[in-house]
Order: sequence, then C-alpha cells, then structure tokens
Amino acid sequence: MNDMTVSHAMGDIDAMVRGSQAARVPIRSGEYTGQTAGLAPGIVQGNVAILPGDWADEFLRFCRRNPKPCTPIAVSEPGDPMLPELGADIDIRTDVPQYRVFENGEEVAEVTDIRDYWRDDLVAFVLGCSFSFEQALIEAGLKLRHWDAGVTVPMYITNVETSGTARYSGPTVVSMRPFSPKDAIRAIQVTSRFPSVHGAPIHFGDPAAIGIEDITKPSFGDVVDIRPGEVPVFWACGVTPQAVIAEAKPPFCITHKPGAMLISDIPNTALAAI
Amino acid sequence: MNDMTVSHAMGDIDAMVRGSQAARVPIRSGEYTGQTAGLAPGIVQGNVAILPGDWADEFLRFCRRNPKPCTPIAVSEPGDPMLPELGADIDIRTDVPQYRVFENGEEVAEVTDIRDYWRDDLVAFVLGCSFSFEQALIEAGLKLRHWDAGVTVPMYITNVETSGTARYSGPTVVSMRPFSPKDAIRAIQVTSRFPSVHGAPIHFGDPAAIGIEDITKPSFGDVVDIRPGEVPVFWACGVTPQAVIAEAKPPFCITHKPGAMLISDIPNTALAAI
Repeated sequence: MNDMTVSHAMGDIDAMVRGSQAARVPIRSGEYTGQTAGLAPGIVQGNVAILPGDWADEFLRFCRRNPKPCTPIAVSEPGDPMLPELGADIDIRTDVPQYRVFENGEEVAEVTDIRDYWRDDLVAFVLGCSFSFEQALIEAGLKLRHWDAGVTVPMYITNVETSGTARYSGPTVVSMRPFSPKDAIRAIQVTSRFPSVHGAPIHFGDPAAIGIEDITKPSFGDVVDIRPGEVPVFWACGVTPQAVIAEAKPPFCITHKPGAMLISDIPNTALAAI
Repeated sequence: MNDMTVSHAMGDIDAMVRGSQAARVPIRSGEYTGQTAGLAPGIVQGNVAILPGDWADEFLRFCRRNPKPCTPIAVSEPGDPMLPELGADIDIRTDVPQYRVFENGEEVAEVTDIRDYWRDDLVAFVLGCSFSFEQALIEAGLKLRHWDAGVTVPMYITNVETSGTARYSGPTVVSMRPFSPKDAIRAIQVTSRFPSVHGAPIHFGDPAAIGIEDITKPSFGDVVDIRPGEVPVFWACGVTPQAVIAEAKPPFCITHKPGAMLISDIPNTALAAI
C-alpha cells in the first residue's frame, strides 16, 4: 500500500467520523430527539444503560458471563460521563437523542439530557447492536429480508437462559434473519468476525429447539417471510440486557429511548476481530 | 513466549515430523503397502493424482475453478518427482504405499512404486483431505459421529455441478457430518480456517436441496445416525476430483490406492489460514 492509498483510505474514515460528529451536534443541543437509524452511515451506534454503584459492578459481571447478547463496547469510569473509548468528546449525559429514567423499574421521566440526573456513582454501559454486523453482511453480498421489506428485524424471547448473577437473570432474546443454507454459512463466517456485536448466531433451523412456539409471532419487531429452502438463523440480541435490567428493577437506571441510540466515532469495520 | 516455550513447542512439531519421516521409510522401501489412517498423527496426508502434459495443465485450471473440492496442497514441476512443498525428501514415485495406474480410464496395474512409469511430462497433484480439518474439529471439542462409530464418513454424489473445463466436469461429491445447530455453527467457524482442505461446508439441512434423495444411502462410505435435533452438514469432498478424472478418462493417469495416501511433513495445524 503506497502513501496515496493510505491517505485515500484514511480520508474515507475521516469523512465518516466527521459525519458522526456532525450528527451529534443537534442531538447534544437537544434539537434532534428522534431515531438514529440512517444517521452517520458506517458508524457504530450503541444501546445505553446507566446504572449506579454495585448495580453497575454486578451488571458488568453479568455481561462478562453472557458475551453473545451483552458485550459492552464501552464502559465509563464511575461518575465520569465521558466515553473516550468511543470518541474524544462523547458525553453520555447529552449525546443520546432521548433518555428514559427509571426508579425501581418504573419510568419516571423521558428527557433529552441527563445532566440533572447525573451522580458520582453512575456507570454508563454502551452495548453494540446488530446494525454493525448487518453492514458487513450486506457488504458480503447477502440480502437482509427485513431491510428489503423496510421493517424492523423480528425478535423472539427464547427458552435459552442467560447465565445469571444474584440480581440479573432472564431469557436470551434473539433476532432472526432467514437465509438459504449457503448464505447462512456465509453469514456465520461474517458475523464471527464481530464478537463485540453478538458474533456468530446461537442457533439456526427449528425454532422450537430454542423455545420459539410460533415463528410468525415475534416478541418484538416485525414478522418476515421465510421462503422455501430458507432456514431461520438466530443471533443473540441487544434486547436481552434491556429485558434483564427491566426485570431486575434497579433503584435507579437510565437507558436510551428505543431506536434513539448513541452515535460513536468508530467505524463499524473497526469492530471486526479479523 | 520465552525461549523455553518456543523450543518446547518446536520440539512437539519436530517429533511429529520425525514420526512422518519414520512412517515413510517402510512405505518407500515397499515394505508397508496398507492404509495410512492413524499413521503420523497430526500430519497432513494427501490424495494423489498424476497426469501428463496438457491433461495436467487443464486439471490445474479445473482445480482453480473448484477450490472447495479441489485445492491442491502441492503440485510438482513437470517431470520432477520431488514435492518440496510437502517435505525435503518426498518423492512421489516411491512414497505412496500403493498406486493405481490407468490408461484411457482403465486400471492397468496396481503397484507399490512408480519409478518404471515415470515420464518427463508427468505432473503430480496432492490434494488435501478432511482428516486435517477433522483434527481441528475434535480439538474444538466437537464429536464426529463416524469417528465414534468407527466407520468411514458417509459421502454423497450431489446435483451441484463443478465448474467444468473442456475435459473435466461432473458433480460435487460431499462428505456429511451430523451436528446440533450450535455445534454446526462452531464447525463452520473451525473449518473456515482450512480453505486448502475443503474449508467451510457447502450446505446443511435438507439433503434434497443438493440432490441427495436418501440420506441413509451414501454413495460411498458408511451411513451414520442423524439424531433428533441434529442437522446433516455437508462439506465438499476430495472424492470429487477423483470422480472427475475417472470420468475424463485421460490417456494416462496414476492415483494412490484409496486409503493409502501420501504422508507429508506438514502439521495439520499449519494449514490453518487464521
């Protein structure tokens, strides 16, 4: 690779990161409060969970035990709202379009800024999402049925229990994408390269084997067709930790509003392990 | 890794290579003429096809078009019986336990040494076999049904056509190993690391989708159980090029006798791409 090639490639990444920084400006000011899908293409977006003290410590232990649904791509220092792992100036108190504030499992506020709620014992967790590996699947030449249909990926509560801690436990939630066996094999290869955003699937084929009674009735998201010759392929889903936290009812918790995620400065391609 | 660790690891590999060299001594002398399964554990064994002149040139083009069934791990220079890619002293004329000699597709001799048949226009092809990736599957903690049953892996002629050349064409032959979906995903990851010995599977699930009418009736090898919750997983098989050559009926050809393969000096682990 000569110097011109390097600077060309670096230029593309720089342009993407400038796009993410530009997208965060109206979010930070409170002007933009909507969904982040489609903003800052090619850039990692993350789900957010903010927990206090030992609830945070225990949640990190829960994540470590359940890496497929719950690998954080960033964890703040206690009381520090900055996330240098994701970008130089990312402040978790202002950089998410909308937040939900919970006390003892009950939503008490929906806000666009959490500076008034910030505390010295809070730890912010950012969890990657399948948007990152879906870009890699598309770039590998695969078609995603829910993309083509313009709907949300179907998600299912399974009977595969997470490995619980004292206060966090619950079933694994999966997302489903149908593929021919040949494309499923390719999808397994591609997503294996992305261990921090759910990695390889946890199952394919018979939905009943993981406790899904009716594949046409997703727990969340929209139903998609499974065509003759296709098999459903199931990946661990970032809804898993959200459901586990909701069930645990910590005394205090802040999350992003579904669909309104944190936009980082990291290209999706940087998450590839190999 | 400190020096002691390095020399320890090197010692293990050295011991394996000494084992392969020792195994070749009675083969080379004509004293051992049997199967090579179980000899020189951990070392690459290969199927052999020796073809003359433009039949060799065309066969290499055929291999390039069909990398999953037909990636050579070594190809000799025309007329040169040595295979330095596989070891310092490997002579294809003496180092296979038994050979079959064909003229126009008819077997004309079965011999333990082909020095009398060697010609200036012959090219030796050595093709890797699934023994190499099966070691990696076992080391990944997976169970192989045909190993546990002590039988030959079941193989099937499919309706998946190879990409033919003028004189070489025919269906892909696959080997089949049953796994749970979870283990199948792991097996896809593991075998993807071994592109020179068939790599990832080409299919899983419905046998009819690749033209297999009855999974209990393999074309070659032995039937194995597929248990409830398991799916058959299909890899391209080294029998494919053998069948294609047999069908092409070249004027002259030498192969190994089935099961009596060439033992190299290369550890199976050295074939891993990543």
